[in-house]
Amino acid sequence: MSRFKVELKKIVDDSYDIEIGFGLEHTLLTDIQNGLAGALHRFAVITDSTVKDLYGDRIYQMLLEAGYQADLFVFPAGETSKTRRTKEQLEDAMLAKGYRRDCCIIAVGGGVVTDLAGFVAGTYGRGVPFINYATTLLAAADASVGGKTAVDTPLATNLIGLFNQPRKVYLDVAAWKTLPADQVSSGLAETIKHAIIASQELFQYLDAHMEELLTIEPEACAHIAQENCKIKYQVVMKDERESGLREILNLGHTVGRAIETVSGYRLLHGEAVSIGLVAEAELALQLGYVTEAERDAVVSLLQKAKLPTGIPDYIDREELVKKLYTDKKVRDGKLRFVIQKGIGNVVEFEQGVFATPIEEAVAREIIMKLS
Amino acid sequence: MSRFKVELKKIVDDSYDIEIGFGLEHTLLTDIQNGLAGALHRFAVITDSTVKDLYGDRIYQMLLEAGYQADLFVFPAGETSKTRRTKEQLEDAMLAKGYRRDCCIIAVGGGVVTDLAGFVAGTYGRGVPFINYATTLLAAADASVGGKTAVDTPLATNLIGLFNQPRKVYLDVAAWKTLPADQVSSGLAETIKHAIIASQELFQYLDAHMEELLTIEPEACAHIAQENCKIKYQVVMKDERESGLREILNLGHTVGRAIETVSGYRLLHGEAVSIGLVAEAELALQLGYVTEAERDAVVSLLQKAKLPTGIPDYIDREELVKKLYTDKKVRDGKLRFVIQKGIGNVVEFEQGVFATPIEEAVAREIIMKLS
Repeated sequence: MSRFKVELKKIVDDSYDIEIGFGLEHTLLTDIQNGLAGALHRFAVITDSTVKDLYGDRIYQMLLEAGYQADLFVFPAGETSKTRRTKEQLEDAMLAKGYRRDCCIIAVGGGVVTDLAGFVAGTYGRGVPFINYATTLLAAADASVGGKTAVDTPLATNLIGLFNQPRKVYLDVAAWKTLPADQVSSGLAETIKHAIIASQELFQYLDAHMEELLTIEPEACAHIAQENCKIKYQVVMKDERESGLREILNLGHTVGRAIETVSGYRLLHGEAVSIGLVAEAELALQLGYVTEAERDAVVSLLQKAKLPTGIPDYIDREELVKKLYTDKKVRDGKLRFVIQKGIGNVVEFEQGVFATPIEEAVAREIIMKLS
Repeated sequence: MSRFKVELKKIVDDSYDIEIGFGLEHTLLTDIQNGLAGALHRFAVITDSTVKDLYGDRIYQMLLEAGYQADLFVFPAGETSKTRRTKEQLEDAMLAKGYRRDCCIIAVGGGVVTDLAGFVAGTYGRGVPFINYATTLLAAADASVGGKTAVDTPLATNLIGLFNQPRKVYLDVAAWKTLPADQVSSGLAETIKHAIIASQELFQYLDAHMEELLTIEPEACAHIAQENCKIKYQVVMKDERESGLREILNLGHTVGRAIETVSGYRLLHGEAVSIGLVAEAELALQLGYVTEAERDAVVSLLQKAKLPTGIPDYIDREELVKKLYTDKKVRDGKLRFVIQKGIGNVVEFEQGVFATPIEEAVAREIIMKLS
């Protein structure tokens, strides 16, 4: 009968800075004092039970001493906390403390904290600003660029969430010294993935400097933090909504995410991704896009980083095959994989298409053999 | 040590059409066949237990018959379903049916359905497209323009959600005939609010045509559907993020939302807003922005629409005063109100500032007297 046109075209500027350094708490405070959060002076510091004592408390106290209103919201450390329930508890705790829309969230911790807090920020009062203070290598590699926030559900990881850009990201390399060795290795998995998809040079750097990275030598760590940002940014900037190119960041994740879930999170994210990278390098080999030597170089670098490269015995492989279908790249019920091309590149199947349908039988065979 | 700039400036076009008419199911289907949802052919039809039999099933069947994949997701009707729990249940049901990111959500129902389904769409796979098929007057007045989606929490209504624009909105005026009388009245409350804040002409139209509206006379209904869109659009387009001007849409809601919550949702949203409009007209009178005659005209029009204009006895008024502080407009612990200026206008306190701090004592006095 009649039609009404709602015109909503606008320019959005979500640009932000990533600060890389050693001990950035005071830089954070100075930035806030200089207007990073606008006129806001109420801060919800969200952290986990591990990072609380190391950084959360310190940043919270620092804000109080500087005259800001602040509260500390702590949830139990670990991927199993990345749920809608934890999000709800954080929201209710913030509501109970009287937080409304005039607040800013500061996420202090690794990828679980920044993913969760960024999601809370995205829906609290329909969106409040947030700042990421990332304390792990994994967060530096994975969570600092791209704006992805999410929680896990019983049926799939990272499927409920939103794209939400922080006001600023701090990558405190000094904090990596507080990480247990397996967490450092786990973080290196995403860095190795970045090297495989986009930079042979970084791949060689990792190979040559792995010892320094595992012992958190400052210069090497800052270098890879910067390289991670650069690679991820190049990909993400061209494809913010993950329609095509951005899928290449999923290398190793089709199998990796599934293993992570089936392991009941016994495997760290990076450990699962490492196994996924090996499985998917094997797939690339079968499809003729990498040589045996290149496949071996991937396995060898992952091993140097002290990462697992075979599927643990306790994993039910049939369940793993089934779980592949919860992957976000699945289209029309068909599995789709990103395929590496040598070292430092990926296959572009058609213009802008970087994932290709793979028969379940092919994926199953690789999974059955990989030990 | 180093800084990395993430440039994310872009043009976003969230424009969409609102179709107003009688029986729009086939228009919806034709639009989908003509590419409204792009190449997507999997549809999650979300509806409530009341609308299911009236429209949900029909639209679901129609999609199946046209060769699309579709599933119907039904939750119990009523504002008490607008929770994080219902959102979670819908998500889990969609995940269980294998829905990933390659789907489109169709919300069929009133404001609760469109608010909830729009929120689900906003975070499912970090965002899938959605279409609103609005079957109530309230949804036509309130939910068709503005992109607000949300759920309620024990501590506050509509505080968890996001801004998310639909691909298209259908206002099926024929569906209003299926509404019980109190729902029609409830919907008229938002229309009357629109008239108070922006259009003396609409106020007069409502006064002259109330009988036709209450009996769902097609032409009058289509007229106010169109006027609602126009007014809301004018406000929202100028201020999508609800920083200043958009707060005027909150007239009647500071008190109204609080009454709705304290009533335990015994009052319909529009009924609560109606009482809120009276309370806030009283406040405007006290502040000298409306005459007694204008205040009386507001009360009289609400009564003509068969809406309550006093606070029911079962409401604990002290609890109501306390609940005012859960309002989104609260800043630094101070209550803030939008104030009407005569009929068809609001007070602009400073450039771009449309809400003013009000002492709790002033609000309390009005609430204590209003019966």
